[in-house]
Amino acid sequence: MEKMFKGKVVCVALNDSEQRQVMAEQFSEPPYKAPPTQPVLYFKPRNTWNNESEAVAWPANSDEFVVGASLAVIIGKTCCRVTEQQALEYVEGVALLHDFSLPETSYYRPDIKGKCLDGSATLSSPVTLSDVGELSDLVVKTTVNGQPAQQLPLSRLYWDVPALLERISHIMTLEAGDIIAVGFAGERIVLQPYDKVSSSLGQSIRLQNTVGGQYA
Amino acid sequence: MEKMFKGKVVCVALNDSEQRQVMAEQFSEPPYKAPPTQPVLYFKPRNTWNNESEAVAWPANSDEFVVGASLAVIIGKTCCRVTEQQALEYVEGVALLHDFSLPETSYYRPDIKGKCLDGSATLSSPVTLSDVGELSDLVVKTTVNGQPAQQLPLSRLYWDVPALLERISHIMTLEAGDIIAVGFAGERIVLQPYDKVSSSLGQSIRLQNTVGGQYA
Repeated sequence: MEKMFKGKVVCVALNDSEQRQVMAEQFSEPPYKAPPTQPVLYFKPRNTWNNESEAVAWPANSDEFVVGASLAVIIGKTCCRVTEQQALEYVEGVALLHDFSLPETSYYRPDIKGKCLDGSATLSSPVTLSDVGELSDLVVKTTVNGQPAQQLPLSRLYWDVPALLERISHIMTLEAGDIIAVGFAGERIVLQPYDKVSSSLGQSIRLQNTVGGQYA
Repeated sequence: MEKMFKGKVVCVALNDSEQRQVMAEQFSEPPYKAPPTQPVLYFKPRNTWNNESEAVAWPANSDEFVVGASLAVIIGKTCCRVTEQQALEYVEGVALLHDFSLPETSYYRPDIKGKCLDGSATLSSPVTLSDVGELSDLVVKTTVNGQPAQQLPLSRLYWDVPALLERISHIMTLEAGDIIAVGFAGERIVLQPYDKVSSSLGQSIRLQNTVGGQYA
């Protein structure tokens, strides 16, 4: 089955301004004692890559499973140390990404165990930037079993897409086909076995997944 | 230029028993207040993959650069939720890996900024398990400019190779070509521009890299 993913998949945590406000007290605790000053990143490696047609397996030995939806920016050409002003030139298209994971207990550096579950990342068909218009006018909307579950207006991103591409491309070179999931709404959505998770972005981007059953 | 790397590159931090003893007090501090009970993992993504023939670039905007050497285990076939007893059946070969990075300040979850520098991972030619004999009899030895810098007897690994493969393959499926760098000696080696870093493992495994110059 063809997978939509081709290169690195880099996700950005803690990029919802409202969540950062809610967490202000937690940020003040040791060891960091301050909110993150740079994007908090994690990878979804190859074993996580899945697609819409296959159920997302419930994690073994876990009663908990959560999901978040993000705008996914698809890199179109090698992108190294670019500025915010140049950044969008390196974007080939946009899509939606679902990140299924175990609930996170430590926010500063997402846990590989919780984030790298087999088949826990899915990506919609992409569209071009010009097809979606102004990114900051768009809202990522997610329903579970048809009921509204979460919304993230992209205007709420703490670092917007150009700011992220500047910062991330100074940390590591991005290649054509690499994906940046730019941010998820505050709390991830708590799932039950067999839930249907659907997200939309603008008029044309849709992503739907079905969660598998829990192991007996 | 052909790169030795093909799949996921998963590195294990904090797997030197001596280092864990030295760090006992640090482990007792918040937020964790205990030593890690599972392997501490990090990835070296595609942009980090390099080879012996190219200088390893000094990181931009940094006066500090460090390196560690590890036994690299090369996975030979899909490896999902295996036991320690089965684990070595999934190993196609072994090699040496150099992990160049910024110095780590927080030990529990290695920092993507410090670990994902472009061209910061190199891999030697591999040999088969039977070529090297008993892993726990081997010693990873590293020199810098010909002077002994560090040794890690593999008997000092806190989790040995079968134990790691059991634990990691329960977190994520490993595929043929994936690499596990099983552990690094306590403190990473501090580098200077133009250093030559050479490591050996057993009679037949060698890896050598030259560090580039610092940006003006």
